[in-house]
Amino acid sequence: MTTSNTTTTTTTTTDHPLRVTLLAGGVGGARFTRGLRDLLVRRGVDAELTVVVNTGDDLWVDGLRVCPDLDTVLYTLAGVVHPDQGWGRQDETLRVSAELHAYGLGLPWFTLGDLDIATHVARTAMLREGVPLSAATARLSARWPLGVRLLPMSDQEVETHVELADGSGTVHFEEWWVRLRAAVPARRFVQVGVEDASPAPGVLDALASADVVLLPPSNPVVSVGTVLGVPGIREAVRTTSAPVVGVSPILGGAPVRGMADACLTTVGVETSALAVARHYGSRRASGLLDGWLVDDVDAPAVAALAADGLAARALPLLMGDDVGDDGRSATDAIVLAALDLAGVRLPG
Amino acid sequence: MTTSNTTTTTTTTTDHPLRVTLLAGGVGGARFTRGLRDLLVRRGVDAELTVVVNTGDDLWVDGLRVCPDLDTVLYTLAGVVHPDQGWGRQDETLRVSAELHAYGLGLPWFTLGDLDIATHVARTAMLREGVPLSAATARLSARWPLGVRLLPMSDQEVETHVELADGSGTVHFEEWWVRLRAAVPARRFVQVGVEDASPAPGVLDALASADVVLLPPSNPVVSVGTVLGVPGIREAVRTTSAPVVGVSPILGGAPVRGMADACLTTVGVETSALAVARHYGSRRASGLLDGWLVDDVDAPAVAALAADGLAARALPLLMGDDVGDDGRSATDAIVLAALDLAGVRLPG
Repeated sequence: MTTSNTTTTTTTTTDHPLRVTLLAGGVGGARFTRGLRDLLVRRGVDAELTVVVNTGDDLWVDGLRVCPDLDTVLYTLAGVVHPDQGWGRQDETLRVSAELHAYGLGLPWFTLGDLDIATHVARTAMLREGVPLSAATARLSARWPLGVRLLPMSDQEVETHVELADGSGTVHFEEWWVRLRAAVPARRFVQVGVEDASPAPGVLDALASADVVLLPPSNPVVSVGTVLGVPGIREAVRTTSAPVVGVSPILGGAPVRGMADACLTTVGVETSALAVARHYGSRRASGLLDGWLVDDVDAPAVAALAADGLAARALPLLMGDDVGDDGRSATDAIVLAALDLAGVRLPG
Repeated sequence: MTTSNTTTTTTTTTDHPLRVTLLAGGVGGARFTRGLRDLLVRRGVDAELTVVVNTGDDLWVDGLRVCPDLDTVLYTLAGVVHPDQGWGRQDETLRVSAELHAYGLGLPWFTLGDLDIATHVARTAMLREGVPLSAATARLSARWPLGVRLLPMSDQEVETHVELADGSGTVHFEEWWVRLRAAVPARRFVQVGVEDASPAPGVLDALASADVVLLPPSNPVVSVGTVLGVPGIREAVRTTSAPVVGVSPILGGAPVRGMADACLTTVGVETSALAVARHYGSRRASGLLDGWLVDDVDAPAVAALAADGLAARALPLLMGDDVGDDGRSATDAIVLAALDLAGVRLPG
């Protein structure tokens, strides 16, 4: 393990529960948060976890409000996520979607399972009654003992739209991501509605009162970047007294999953662990990060970041549930390293 | 067969398609309309069938607009209705409902199947976009070659509510019907919103231009009665030049299905084929009916109605798909008798 300087903060967990706040997108953020929660439970650490989730991917489909990232986090933490695809429900069926298609509705490129549709129907029923998304999310979450508080980044609708570089128009992010597979270059991402949006209740407080703020290996542009785009959230991350540690979603010049490279290119950032860290920036230079985890293949970035004043560390970053010879899964090791970089030493 | 006087009108089918307009509720109206359509097809009769359907049972469930009678008619004519229960879809599953219940939503006494929910999602999506119910119904109907035009009685929401006789309050009709099984006597039925409602586009014209108007054996109070309660529809039935013939939903003092007796009691009408005919009234005495079919067990009503100036006929009224020795099903015989009473003789 290659390590640069460590952070200056050391958090103890004796006087109050360990408060960890995460900013997350979908699969990467969900799996990281699950790993964190499970590790803290196994170590007997009293913790309050809050995950602030990107809602820029949300969209209306056949009158139902679909929140891809919130649902991925919800299902993952609830233990009902489809284990292979990482999103949607396990044991899923497509009877409702088939009917909708037969009626000439639905999006041909966006398939919703029956169990998943129930979530959207329930959420939409609440939204139509005037319940804010944050409260609706709390009610949906209450079904399971998640052990994590889920917060949408905002109660207002903020949708990421994509201006296509070929001049053919603007599409919703999900259409670009799912239908076009991000193969048509994006000229620009637009957060429609962001100027009128504010952080959902609890978001700013969860950042201000955190002992640790973590950026899981989510897409730095259209997931974490979208969360940070809500007026007030970036400043809250910048000014929190908690150390802020991120996990690189880029390994050896390519995203672990998804098409973050296409997003980074759009915003003029190289697809590398180093460039993404510099995109977030060191807090010592008015950026966001105190610490950054990179994969072993990106170990040379550690020294470069140290020169920027940013504590970095290299270790295997591919999250997985496989348990190694030491009894720890790769995800455990990443979570432990992130906490360690934030100055938190766990018992056990 | 006992027959009183016949109607004065005789319709030929040579100059234009035979135009038949029906006012219907759920199962009884749906099965009768299907029998009529199938018979006319088999006899090679060029016909335009329009069924004006009760929407007083419609309700919002978890943000979805559910239209029980429209859907029963739709599914029955499409050939996808659950054959035993007479409503809902065949080969149905309950995955979405189970999820909604797990989220603490849904009505415990009102279960919606997955295929059925797709219809509600599709309809609600259109309604939320401002599409009127009549147009949404046309789009849903377009999926199948129904051979019948489905019209809701009104594009406005008109919901039948039930004032309970025990003073315990007022409930939606579906709650009284499905949850309470109409076991708590109703003091009064209220058509909420009816004063601001108007007939859906096409309804008045379908009545004015009809060659025959038929009242299938639907509930005379909360199905046909609700349709007739929309301002303008009762008058259109009364003033159409077409003969108006009804089929008694009461056989030997009891409803064929459902709990029409409870509804009739509420409006002060005896549960008998004769009393229901007199409730509709003879057109010769400013009522609605030219003809009325009763079951053989109610044959004595024929003479009594003749004295009222109403052409009646007695025959077996239990609709069924069983084909008798003469190759005709019971439904065929009822349909033929209704048309015959309206002066229509079919070829073949």
